[in-house]
Amino acid sequence: MLHDLFPPGIQHALDLAGIFVFATAGALLAVRKNFDVFGICVLALVTALGGGLLRDLCIGAVPPAAFSELSFFVTPLIAAAIVFFLHPEVQRINRAINVFDAAGLGLFCVTGTTKAYEYGLGLTASAALGLATAVGGGVLRDVLANEVPSLLRDREMYAVPAVVGAAMVAVFIGFDVLNPVTTGIAIVTTFVLRLLAMRYHWRAPLAWNRRSSVAEEV
Amino acid sequence: MLHDLFPPGIQHALDLAGIFVFATAGALLAVRKNFDVFGICVLALVTALGGGLLRDLCIGAVPPAAFSELSFFVTPLIAAAIVFFLHPEVQRINRAINVFDAAGLGLFCVTGTTKAYEYGLGLTASAALGLATAVGGGVLRDVLANEVPSLLRDREMYAVPAVVGAAMVAVFIGFDVLNPVTTGIAIVTTFVLRLLAMRYHWRAPLAWNRRSSVAEEV
Amino acid sequence: MLHDLFPPGIQHALDLAGIFVFATAGALLAVRKNFDVFGICVLALVTALGGGLLRDLCIGAVPPAAFSELSFFVTPLIAAAIVFFLHPEVQRINRAINVFDAAGLGLFCVTGTTKAYEYGLGLTASAALGLATAVGGGVLRDVLANEVPSLLRDREMYAVPAVVGAAMVAVFIGFDVLNPVTTGIAIVTTFVLRLLAMRYHWRAPLAWNRRSSVAEEV
Repeated sequence: MLHDLFPPGIQHALDLAGIFVFATAGALLAVRKNFDVFGICVLALVTALGGGLLRDLCIGAVPPAAFSELSFFVTPLIAAAIVFFLHPEVQRINRAINVFDAAGLGLFCVTGTTKAYEYGLGLTASAALGLATAVGGGVLRDVLANEVPSLLRDREMYAVPAVVGAAMVAVFIGFDVLNPVTTGIAIVTTFVLRLLAMRYHWRAPLAWNRRSSVAEEV
Repeated sequence: MLHDLFPPGIQHALDLAGIFVFATAGALLAVRKNFDVFGICVLALVTALGGGLLRDLCIGAVPPAAFSELSFFVTPLIAAAIVFFLHPEVQRINRAINVFDAAGLGLFCVTGTTKAYEYGLGLTASAALGLATAVGGGVLRDVLANEVPSLLRDREMYAVPAVVGAAMVAVFIGFDVLNPVTTGIAIVTTFVLRLLAMRYHWRAPLAWNRRSSVAEEV
Repeated sequence: MLHDLFPPGIQHALDLAGIFVFATAGALLAVRKNFDVFGICVLALVTALGGGLLRDLCIGAVPPAAFSELSFFVTPLIAAAIVFFLHPEVQRINRAINVFDAAGLGLFCVTGTTKAYEYGLGLTASAALGLATAVGGGVLRDVLANEVPSLLRDREMYAVPAVVGAAMVAVFIGFDVLNPVTTGIAIVTTFVLRLLAMRYHWRAPLAWNRRSSVAEEV
């Protein structure tokens, strides 16, 4: 079976680590937006579990893992509690969080693609849902916080590494060479691309021929 | 069966009452935001049915009750029509609406938790979906109206009574003592907590140690 | 079978044409909002496929057509690529796009209603989901772009023709007279109503007795 790529315990620990990091990012945004304790919990949960929830609804994996796996649900609440009490300290290690977030991005786009394929979707659709798993939670978080999703606007090259990672998994599946080694390669590629994008401020392009530079500043 | 807690007729009448009140709140927001007649109908429908729709999608109850039960669909349209023609009068009884809304909150978090459990979810997940049933419609309404969900920000203690109610139901189920009496207790507890929170302006806490008071005013 | 109203090839070509036009509208909004290339692709996909995705989730058609039919997924990306490189030219033919958009509206509300009915929903629910198919993508697009959905506010009479078209299909099904001719009539009626609404600036009414004209200008 595909999802026994790693021993179950390791897979589960990696999932929880990814969820924890994503939840922390969500809770920090909630604090910045001055949300109350309930809003902090909601944004932590949505950021960490929203992408997987979207994927599970689309592939018919009901109830979604977010609701069938208790540890997936509790982990974001722990992250929310930590941010609630210690957010100045948490913000201080923002750079470290970004590194873990990049790791979570790689992990989620790979496991999301694999899970969608296991449920019978085609390779392109699986890669698309792997991408949705990785970035969907962040988009939902920004929508709830009433902000333009940073993913769509900030040109931060957040999505592109995830696109690459999900596509690599789809190609590996297509050539029937998906195994722990190739899976690891896809995760690491996504992770490294994201770190390089942050380090060198790579930017996604805007549409060609934008004539109005005023629009840029709005 | 769990959902025969009340005679079906009473259960249905209570559901319709809750839907009507939630729809009225949604339609009033649409009028305040200057939406047209179509927007008023959409916001009434989304506020009243959105929470249950989210729950039904997550538990695999397809088609959702919102679409399989005609009276659930028509009731918000009636509320929208009333608000469309009589909104100054409706706004004048805003306090009464808030009381009914608190009752709807209690009812929905209890029935939502029960329904999720019937579909095989765990107790924690059931309580979470009960909460989503009660407050999800209001969040969707605010997202469509392009506002920060008041639930997350306004510190109104709207969600906390629903959390308590849903948790009570989960505990009752866990101890196998869910019956019309304990169900009623959970509904009334939620209702009374919500009224007390409004009456005494209870506030949900912000994150500890917010150093910047400037942020508060932004 | 109901959905063999047209020869499959024609039906598919019409679907792709509708998807292409909706995707173009989404991509153009993304350019106006200064989104990067990834945001342009996402808004094209969401606008074109979001409505059908909502419908498919609600009727239990899993995986949704957006993910099971590769051409549905690729078409919006082609539209996004065209807008990315040629958006000034595309914007110049905005009037033509609006005409095609009206055609897509008619097509989608009719096919959406038909598909929902085939999955066993009642006539009212089918018409509601037909409407959601036609306008849901645009609402999701506006939510992601952090704007109040133009559908709810701009009084453009965008939704009303779709309501009429979806209702006509439901009535035809109810009287058992749905066939290629009546389907065509419903599509053309929606299309023409929408064109007339644009041409004569028909406006959907606001709530009665709005006393504050200040609110209008906000």
